[in-house]
Amino acid sequence: MLQPLTWENGKIRFLDQTRLPQEEIYRETKDYRVIAEGIRTLQIRGAPLIGIGAAYGLCLGAQEYMNEDLSSFGRMMHSVDAKLRSTRPTAVNLFWALDNMKKVWEMGLAEGSSSAEICHCLVEKAEEITKREYNVNRDISRYGAALLNEGDTVLTHCNAGTLACSGWGTALGVINWAVHEENKTITVLADETRPLLQGSRLTAFELMHTHLAVKIICDNMAGYFMAQGKVSKVVVGADRVTLQGDVANKIGTYSLAVLASYHKIPFYVAVPLSSVDFALEEGKDIPIEEREEKEVLELYGKNIAPQGARAKNPAFDVTPHKLITAIITEKGIITPPFDETFQRLKNK
Amino acid sequence: MLQPLTWENGKIRFLDQTRLPQEEIYRETKDYRVIAEGIRTLQIRGAPLIGIGAAYGLCLGAQEYMNEDLSSFGRMMHSVDAKLRSTRPTAVNLFWALDNMKKVWEMGLAEGSSSAEICHCLVEKAEEITKREYNVNRDISRYGAALLNEGDTVLTHCNAGTLACSGWGTALGVINWAVHEENKTITVLADETRPLLQGSRLTAFELMHTHLAVKIICDNMAGYFMAQGKVSKVVVGADRVTLQGDVANKIGTYSLAVLASYHKIPFYVAVPLSSVDFALEEGKDIPIEEREEKEVLELYGKNIAPQGARAKNPAFDVTPHKLITAIITEKGIITPPFDETFQRLKNK
Repeated sequence: MLQPLTWENGKIRFLDQTRLPQEEIYRETKDYRVIAEGIRTLQIRGAPLIGIGAAYGLCLGAQEYMNEDLSSFGRMMHSVDAKLRSTRPTAVNLFWALDNMKKVWEMGLAEGSSSAEICHCLVEKAEEITKREYNVNRDISRYGAALLNEGDTVLTHCNAGTLACSGWGTALGVINWAVHEENKTITVLADETRPLLQGSRLTAFELMHTHLAVKIICDNMAGYFMAQGKVSKVVVGADRVTLQGDVANKIGTYSLAVLASYHKIPFYVAVPLSSVDFALEEGKDIPIEEREEKEVLELYGKNIAPQGARAKNPAFDVTPHKLITAIITEKGIITPPFDETFQRLKNK
Repeated sequence: MLQPLTWENGKIRFLDQTRLPQEEIYRETKDYRVIAEGIRTLQIRGAPLIGIGAAYGLCLGAQEYMNEDLSSFGRMMHSVDAKLRSTRPTAVNLFWALDNMKKVWEMGLAEGSSSAEICHCLVEKAEEITKREYNVNRDISRYGAALLNEGDTVLTHCNAGTLACSGWGTALGVINWAVHEENKTITVLADETRPLLQGSRLTAFELMHTHLAVKIICDNMAGYFMAQGKVSKVVVGADRVTLQGDVANKIGTYSLAVLASYHKIPFYVAVPLSSVDFALEEGKDIPIEEREEKEVLELYGKNIAPQGARAKNPAFDVTPHKLITAIITEKGIITPPFDETFQRLKNK
């Protein structure tokens, strides 16, 4: 399996996903600012991996200030935490992971632990989060695979695989499990996913790595293949899910969901419960990141539009729960009404 | 106005649309093969412009063989005609224009005219086709503009403007007429239109040239902006329309039509009657051009997908008539049932 981000002897080693598929470049750093910048620029990306990266990023910050006295160590931890939180607004796993980490360092400070002790506990917590995500993704993959039949063609969008999550991944984990653990023949159509081409650059790369049959299509071709009867199911990941089951995911997911509904094709979202925002009822309350226009207007530094052209670049959209057939989680497959199940899980 | 293709002293001068927007390069040729290759590779593109280019291309062929004896001139005309017909299968204007030209050279041969006389008549016919398209586009623009209201945001796909048609264009003509002849404030959202980016490269270029407010979006963002209530109308061109009113147009048009229908947004097709194929009943009978995979896998000669990746690349899709609010033609705005009106026009 690909290793998009690992912790090795006080350093983070990560695959720069902006360079794929041309170059498979791993970077090593002891600087949490490099991690924050890496998350902001999508070198480290995918909701679950952003959570893992931020958790270890916080460990780097703690290491850096370990020799300060405890009160300035505490101040610096707040600053590192804020820096990491400011990188991307939509995926909830970032906040979920940093909240988990914060409990550790705040408790350490409250109990008067040494900064070295706190550092140690933070690394342990980040490792726990990483292992948890691995197990969670494996369970999502296993549960979800049951939804796929021999001979299915599965359409997916963006990248919700190993590169986005480490371990099995979510949407791609489901497909890989069906193929490799259950010996089903599955063909994948991968939306290229403009503007940053996570589909052609990352999903195709990953699936070719695991020897799956994958064809890349442009985002605007999905309806055509659905109308031809060539899409059996749609499976995507998610960046944030509300209590009602509304799903924020990469821009274009909503259009796919409308198209799937029109063609009566099942639409599945594979997502860890760490992506469920139990504080939000409805999708309209999810903040949608608006990214730089040049991501649309340029490609590899070259203009693909006239000089001075303007663009819009929302990075995510929200798919309302009524367009979703089922949500695949590590606790099993959740069918509508989603809010009942999520409410029960929230109250646990 | 931009001049994408003109006939000047026995030569064709055309704008190489594959080089836009970086370079505005005009090429001159006396060789019909250059025109055939130019159509095949989308240097000359857009259903009406392909018709015009093929008509003048045939004139170049006639000139080249003018000094042959009449029977071998006739043989060569068949060969030139076949070469031009083989360039692109979906847009019907190519065949419509070449059919019109064929009547001229076949009649000339039957009447024993000299090849010089036939050449002269062919150029006259091509000029007539060109003038006709200009008037037709102006009428389409004027009729269609009535459908747009002050303050509308119009979403369009691919390029159905001056570059695709010469003169006013169709879909973009409608918008330009509303703005420049009727002083309406209109904002345009231009789908970038992967894989060949006719939206960002050509539509944005044209609309900036005529000082319209245009923002480029990725194809997968259309649903998002519709859901936000930010799209008032969709207006697109067409490459072929059947008697029932099914419309072949650039890949992605069908997805837009489904999305527009879901959001109850009017969906208009602006098209000359020369794009109506009176011989075809249903959209399923329109041949859909499948283009090279590398158009999806590469951009400006650079891989955007892993080495060895596969892609699908249908260049068009078919939007069934039931998803179309109205078809804007040079004879006025046609509302459903389209087949009644088309049948009447066919029998004229």
